[in-house]
Order: sequence, then C-alpha cells, then structure tokens
Amino acid sequence: MQKVVIIGGVALGPKAACRFKRLEPESEVTILEQGEFISYGGCGIPFYISGEVSDHLELQSTSFHVVRDVSFFKEAKDVNVLTKIKALKIDRENKRVKALNLKTNKEISFEYDKLVLATGSKPRRLGLKGENLNNVFYVKGLEDAILIRQNITKGVNKAVVIGAGFIGLEIAEALTDLWGIETSIIECQNQILPGFLSPELAQVASHHLKEQGVNLYTQEQVKEIRGNQQVEKVITNKRELEADIVIVAPGVVPNSELAQQAGLETTAWGGIIVNEFLQTSDPNIYAGGDVIALKNLITGEYGYFPLGSLANRQGRIIGSNLAGERKKFKGAVGSFILKLFDLAIAGSGITLNKAIALGKKAKSGIAIQFDKAHFYPEKDLTLLELVVDEPSKKILGIQGISSNGDSLKARIDAVASILSFGPTLEDISNLEICYSPPFAAAMDIINVIANVTENIVEQKNIGALPKEFFDFVKVALTSKDKIVLDCRGQDNAKEWLKKYPQIWLNIPTEELRKRIHEVPKDKEIMLVCNTGARSYEAQLILRQNNITNTKNVIAGMGFLTRYGLKI
Amino acid sequence: MQKVVIIGGVALGPKAACRFKRLEPESEVTILEQGEFISYGGCGIPFYISGEVSDHLELQSTSFHVVRDVSFFKEAKDVNVLTKIKALKIDRENKRVKALNLKTNKEISFEYDKLVLATGSKPRRLGLKGENLNNVFYVKGLEDAILIRQNITKGVNKAVVIGAGFIGLEIAEALTDLWGIETSIIECQNQILPGFLSPELAQVASHHLKEQGVNLYTQEQVKEIRGNQQVEKVITNKRELEADIVIVAPGVVPNSELAQQAGLETTAWGGIIVNEFLQTSDPNIYAGGDVIALKNLITGEYGYFPLGSLANRQGRIIGSNLAGERKKFKGAVGSFILKLFDLAIAGSGITLNKAIALGKKAKSGIAIQFDKAHFYPEKDLTLLELVVDEPSKKILGIQGISSNGDSLKARIDAVASILSFGPTLEDISNLEICYSPPFAAAMDIINVIANVTENIVEQKNIGALPKEFFDFVKVALTSKDKIVLDCRGQDNAKEWLKKYPQIWLNIPTEELRKRIHEVPKDKEIMLVCNTGARSYEAQLILRQNNITNTKNVIAGMGFLTRYGLKI
Repeated sequence: MQKVVIIGGVALGPKAACRFKRLEPESEVTILEQGEFISYGGCGIPFYISGEVSDHLELQSTSFHVVRDVSFFKEAKDVNVLTKIKALKIDRENKRVKALNLKTNKEISFEYDKLVLATGSKPRRLGLKGENLNNVFYVKGLEDAILIRQNITKGVNKAVVIGAGFIGLEIAEALTDLWGIETSIIECQNQILPGFLSPELAQVASHHLKEQGVNLYTQEQVKEIRGNQQVEKVITNKRELEADIVIVAPGVVPNSELAQQAGLETTAWGGIIVNEFLQTSDPNIYAGGDVIALKNLITGEYGYFPLGSLANRQGRIIGSNLAGERKKFKGAVGSFILKLFDLAIAGSGITLNKAIALGKKAKSGIAIQFDKAHFYPEKDLTLLELVVDEPSKKILGIQGISSNGDSLKARIDAVASILSFGPTLEDISNLEICYSPPFAAAMDIINVIANVTENIVEQKNIGALPKEFFDFVKVALTSKDKIVLDCRGQDNAKEWLKKYPQIWLNIPTEELRKRIHEVPKDKEIMLVCNTGARSYEAQLILRQNNITNTKNVIAGMGFLTRYGLKI
Repeated sequence: MQKVVIIGGVALGPKAACRFKRLEPESEVTILEQGEFISYGGCGIPFYISGEVSDHLELQSTSFHVVRDVSFFKEAKDVNVLTKIKALKIDRENKRVKALNLKTNKEISFEYDKLVLATGSKPRRLGLKGENLNNVFYVKGLEDAILIRQNITKGVNKAVVIGAGFIGLEIAEALTDLWGIETSIIECQNQILPGFLSPELAQVASHHLKEQGVNLYTQEQVKEIRGNQQVEKVITNKRELEADIVIVAPGVVPNSELAQQAGLETTAWGGIIVNEFLQTSDPNIYAGGDVIALKNLITGEYGYFPLGSLANRQGRIIGSNLAGERKKFKGAVGSFILKLFDLAIAGSGITLNKAIALGKKAKSGIAIQFDKAHFYPEKDLTLLELVVDEPSKKILGIQGISSNGDSLKARIDAVASILSFGPTLEDISNLEICYSPPFAAAMDIINVIANVTENIVEQKNIGALPKEFFDFVKVALTSKDKIVLDCRGQDNAKEWLKKYPQIWLNIPTEELRKRIHEVPKDKEIMLVCNTGARSYEAQLILRQNNITNTKNVIAGMGFLTRYGLKI
C-alpha cells in the first residue's frame, strides 16, 4: 500500500495513474491538476479549432465515447483527481506537496510515498508589446482552444500566426482550410519547421503553403501587436499586417519551476533530468512527458521532445515502476509527422544542418519516386532525404514529404524504429519492408534513398540541389560555357527546348552512348531528368567518355517543380 | 575487364547487370534468358490479369515508360541480352556455360570470368490427372499471364484456383472483382496463407473472401481435372466444381537443376546455398533471387523467400560484388503484404504455430484499434498479432489485417525493419513512430499490441480466442454455470441482452466497482467489450474482488465480428 501523488492531469499523469492502479489496486493515487480539464488529447487542439473534431468533449473522451472526467477516474479507475489545485512546493524531506485550492484560495498539503511530476510544458513567452490585447492567444491548453474557436465562430477575417513550428502550421491550416480566414504566418528563422527539415524540403512545404493561399513571411521579426483593447495589427520589422485574431505559437518549454525549486536536477533549459527508469535525482520522484529532458539517441545529448505519444508511453513506464517493476525508457530519436493541407511531412533523427552543427562529417541524399510499383494505377510521389555520417556510414536521420501520409509514415517509421540500433546505409539499402505492387515498389523508395545517398557519399553521383540548378540556368543564359543536358524523352523535354534553345540539349539517357559526339566537351553540364535516376546514369556514361565537368540535379524535375522557384 | 555471364533475365539478372556496368563500364556482360520476355515485374502479373495494368508492356517498362527490351539493354546499359537461350550445363573447370539456342536448336558456349545464377523459381508441379487440358494454367511467367488474359476476355464464367497462397489469392481477386467470374479456391491445408498467418487471422481473411463472393474450400484435395480437350470440371475429395478455367498456384520451388548438376551446394529442397556476399560454393559463381536459400534471421535456419523485392536488392549487391566490392546480404525475416479485395494482410517474421513447431515457448497477443487518434474523423480499425518468445521476450513475428493497407504497412514495417536486431517486447512498447492525430494514436496500436502481449505473457490478461468464445456461448446456453459479462455501454450490449437474456450480463467497466455485487461469484465468466481493453480492465477489477474464474475475449467484438462465426 503506497500513497502516490501525481502533479498534472493531462496526458502522462492519468496514464501513469491508471497503469499503476491496474498493477497495485490497493494503493492510493491522487492527481492534482491546476486547470479545469483533465486527460485530454492536447495534440487534437488544432483539429478542434478547425472543426474537424466538432466537440471538445471528444478530446476528453475514451475511444468508447465515455468522458474522462473526475468521476470517471474515481469510478472506473479508483483514482482521485482534484482539479483547480495548483501545486506550490515540494517538501522532499517530509515527502509532502503543498498546494493551493484555486477555488477556495486555501492551502492544502498532500503526503506521498512516491511523487510523479507531469507538469508538462508551457508556451515560450515572447513578451511582445500588445500580447495581452483581446484576441491574442497563446495556445496553452484546451481552455484557450475553446476561446479561440468561440472567437472564430463570431467571425474572423484576417489571422496572423506567429511561429511556423508544428502548432503554428496546424493552426494556420485550420484557419485557412476550414474557416476560410486569410492567414499569414510570421517566422523569425529562415524556413518553416526549423530544426526539423532541411532548407530544401522546407521550401517544398512552404511552396505548398503558398499554393494553399497562406501568406508566409520567414526571417521576419514581430516587433509589436497593436490595437485598442481588441487586436488590430501585427507590426514586423518589414511590414504591418491587419489581424482580427493573433495566435502566438513560438514553441514550448518545460514547466519545471516546481522541480527546480525542489532542487531536482534539470538541464540549463529547464528539462528535468531523469534516469532510464524515469526517476529524477530524487528516486522517490518520477517525471515524464513534456517536462523532462530526454537523451537524444542519435546525438547522445539531452534533447527536448514534447510529444503526446512519448508522454503516454512514459506514463505506462512510470506506472509500472511505481509498482516495483524496472521498465526502461532509453531516450528518443525525434520522430514526427505533420499534416499540412494536402501534404504530409515526416521525419526522424536529425537534419543535415544539425549534424554539421554538431561537428559531424555528414552528407545527405534526396530522392523522389512513386510509393507503389510504377505500373500500379494508384500511386503518389514520395520525396525523401536521408542524412548519413560519412566516415561510419551510420544513419543520422530521415525526412520526407508526400501527399499520402500513411504511405510516407511507413517509410519514415521503418527507419525511425531502427534508428536507435545504429543502422548503416547498407541496412537501409537492404531494409526488408513488406512488398507487393499495390503497396510498394520492388526497389522501394526507402531502399532507393539509401542507394542514392551511398552514390553521393562515394562521389559517384555528383549532385546539385534546386537552388544551384536555378542559379546555373540564370548564369548559363548569359555565358557560353554552360548547358543543361535533359536526359528525358523528347515529350518531356520539348517545352524546355523551346524556352531555352541556346542552353538546353536533349538526349535521352538510352540514346546517350550512340549520340555521345553531340555532347560538348568543353562546357559545364547540368544533367536533369524527372527523378535524378536517368541523369545519374547519364553522368556515369559521360564520365566513362571523359566528360567530367557535370552535375546531376538531385531528385530531378520532380523536386524542382515542388520547390516552386520559377525559371 | 571481366566477362560476366548471367543466366536469367527477369528480375535479379538485369539488376545485377546494370549495377555492375555502372561500376565497371569496360567489362562485358551477357544475359542468357530462355524465355521471350526479359526484365519484367513478375509480381505485377495478377494485376495484368485483372486488367488494372492494361498492357503487359507496362510490366516490361521503366518508370519513364521505356520498354526494357533487348535493344534497350544494349543501347542504354551496354548489356548484351540473348533471349530464347537455354543454359544446359556449367563447366566450372573451364569456366564456360553450354547453352541451346531455342530458335535455331544449335548449341553454343559462353566463356565467363564470373557467372551469376538468376534462374528464379518454377511452380511446384502437382502432376494432376488432366492438368494438361486446355485452359489449365500454372502461372509460370508473363507468357502464361498473356494466355490467361486472352482466355478470360473470350468469356469465362467459372474459375477454380488451386492453392490459397499469395498468387492464388491475388488471381482469385482478379477474376472475381474485375471480371465478375464465379471463382472457387481449393486449398489442401486447413487455412488460407498457411505458414503466414495464425488460424485466427486467416479466418478473418477467409470471412472477407466469402463476403466478396469467393467460394473457399480448405482442407480439401484436388483429385483430378476433367474435360474433353477443354477443361470442364475439378474433382476434389469432397465435391465436383465446374470450371471454364483452372489456375494452379501451389507455390514455387527453386529452379536450381543447373546449379545442382554443376555440383554447387544446395539445401535438400533445392535452394542454392550462398554466403553473405551471395557467392555460391564456387566463389566465381554468384546466385540470388528465387533460386537461393536465405538464412531466416529469426530462426537461424535456411528459408525460402521468393520475392521480387529481395531479388532486386540482391541484384544490386551481386552487381557491386562482381565489381570488387564486398557488400553483404545477411538474410531475411520474411516480410509480406497482400491486397485481398478491401483488406490488406501483412506480416513479418514467423507465426505462433511456426514458433511452437520450432520448439519455442512462444505466445502471441492480438489487439484491435483505430490507426488514428480516436477523435480524428478518418480512421480504420487495425488488427495485429504479435508473436513473442516467452523466456527472452524477444519478438518473433507480427501479422496484421486492415482496410487501410498503407497504414497497416507502416505498423508492420516498423517491426519488420527492427526484427533482425532482436527487439524485445519493451522495444516495441516504446517504439517511437511518427505521431500526430491524422496519422496515429498517441498510444498507437503498434505500442498497444506490445502492451497487450506483455499482459498476456505475464498472465495478467487471461484471454480467450474467438473460437473459445463461440464454444463457451454454446455450452453456456445449456449449462447454468457460465455467463458472459459485457463490459460495454448499454447501447452496444442491448442486442445481445435481448438475444441471450439467460447468459448475458451487462455492466460497463466504469460501473463495475460500484456494481460488483451483481457479479455472480460461482460462475465461469467470459468478459467481452469492443476491443478487449475494457474487458481486460474488468478482469483486473474482478480479480481484485477475488472473482478469478474469468476469461477476456482477446480483441473483443471487433475481432469476433470480423471472424465471421455466427452465434
């Protein structure tokens, strides 16, 4: 018989409580939650704002439509939940939590044998002038979401979203797609999803955002929010934007003051440090979810992974360990997926830029291919980037974009699940995923991306990214020493031949050996096809014929088109 | 400069040839193919028969619609392909292949430095009386597929498919779904996909087959095929079936006579034995694809994995190693996926029955859950079975069924890719797949199946499979010591309460603690809910109250409904 107190009642807290009670029914569990709502799917908030989830009670319900409220926890789970109770202080010596009842404004105290910190995250505060105006929202929790939706339904024409991270993008989609609100996103960094995608893949996503009518301003700082009680404008260092509603989504930080005051070990940025059993530096205190630092299994550093899925899994582990088991949570690789209008964006591990910033000698390959057998009628193009440590050939990360999210998830998850085992390029090249023509290609994109990356690392494939291609074309038009060799069939090439007759040469790869004499030997050549595969083959044939001043447009026209730069 | 000869021009042969020529362009490669067609997607044959792939040239084309014929290989790849050349003998001492030109009936001989055996598989011959009648087909290759489709378009009303393996099922779907032919499948074993699914999951697939109008006869032997030139009937040990066309699909065996005659090492069942570099017992002879035995990475035994996807990957490795690299192919775990009308069926590793047959102390868990957040509007139920070695808690295999094949593939591939690393239940429980509500649940089915299996292995969850439940209900109706406790809400339970008032008791799990006195203490209790989760919780609550004679219907009504047995 133990007394367990859990601070925080959203995701990890209830999960830990229920698992523990299943294992040790005679013990007593009390959850203290400072808000009004408990046990809700916080990741569902954007879908509630959009209206796809019609009632917020759905976010608070079980899969069998029972609302997880205080009495549900008491009756179904024998767990005590107290809402509107704000924990004030942890007295580790006497094993007590001092708290404030927000309804009565009285202090109360709770005794524990084991304590669980599930205090989650809080939005990073920007401290902007005007951020307290009406209709300016930080998305802290379900309470804010309900207010936001109430405001939208009253009629909103123009919205500004500050921050192009996951929440910002999901909310921008909700506002634009479902409510038809003219939406602008302001991001201070030079790309969307900074830290999660390469600039190249981010550009593909940004291009899609713009096609969907979202105004995106990157590398732009918000200076002030203006209005008269009600918000009216957002002022950046470059422009003024009218706004009826402003959503501030600059990311979240661990909500760890309580832990810090109690002298528990945290990282410099406030993540509670835990061992593999999810115990803090005080073995009687467990912590998990958005409040902890997790070991990044790729870099070995502490990282921050505020995700509902991890919180749930950690909740089960804490529940088990409270009951005397020794279950482990080793860390995270950082898997994510995001629906962005008609695209899905997913990844796992780290990006090329992150790897280089960590001092690694890293390279990446990018490939585009259908996700099904090319002869199968229904299929979608999938764009993947694979990041590899050059000396060891170990995989550091993978990112991708596709219009079929389930299918993209299959490719990313296949690598995500293996990442912590330290796979090499060869492992991915031979990855034995499920195959039949309606679901994969015999040489699937996930194997192909490893082969492409290997060819790049081994400098068989000398590639150019879209920006380099566009710059090349611009210069080629005024110089005389550069040409584009289009390795596709004539049908594909003719539009370009017509547009740029002076720099565009078309020889399908299949005819290149025969027509090698047509290729100028004294010029710099940019090779292009639809996917980068035929042009790679062309590069090899040219090299064999001592024509070596060539570059191959990685992922070809498929990538260039999605990249959205016009030439 | 080497001379490479490759015997076999369908999948692995051309792949090895092209990769090798990319690395060593100055060397000479000759492919000998006894058939007429080369480099085609054999796995696409059922989709060509169905008409989904309209022209067989699509199966022979690149993704950019260029037909991979003899002149394509010569011009684009500088690879010599000779069709209608049947290899007769390998003279290892003099490094020559003796062959017959089937067009001229003349013998010719080819010198090699390195030889590649890509002779593939051939259908297991049943030697049935009448199997040479017109309109009886073994599906050997594209030639047969073209004949089958020609026959179908002439008008076929009734078809019999012999064998309920992958090819048999795919062809049965093609005949039924696209051509509206009344189709019967005869399988000598007691389930479809024997060796790939548990009897329980196979039953779910069989039930779906029947719902789609396919007649399925398992545990039935074909005795004879009858007709007068043209096929008319198939005679089994139990019935006579009229047939205008018969497809014999009893599985394939390695086509390895040539290798055996040359004294290369093979398994008892004819699979060529190769090392990790895919060299046969003669290091100058490589082999891969459907003709080789591969190490099963789960069991450590030699296994047979005749799959186009593996052939392609091995082709690349052989191509690399011919050019002096040392690339490895370590073996296979046996991943598969099959489209069967509106369902997808997938798996990796071994089944529970196979594990037990190997002497392992194995158990499996079965779970059903939505593949997306339960509050997200679009979602599909996914049924998974996870097989685990009890003492070590190592994962041996996973199988699943869902109407969303891409989404099922994501779950199976996440485990498939990790399987050869020897993951434990804890690894799957914490598997960090990509999460957001439109693509996964916070506690995703892939994590849940590990938790369910753990609870079963640790005997916290005492389960019953569908058949046991149906038998229980039958006995309960005439005995007085058995009841069903329905743990769902009243809306779900009322149909059953009405049907079986004498044995059906309904207490939602959330009310069970309060209403525990309503539960009889002297009866055997079968607990049921929609997914097995609430009834598991009920089992724990009952146990806590010293009511222990209970079983929990694994995967609940969701499984029972799909299982198709009527009570």
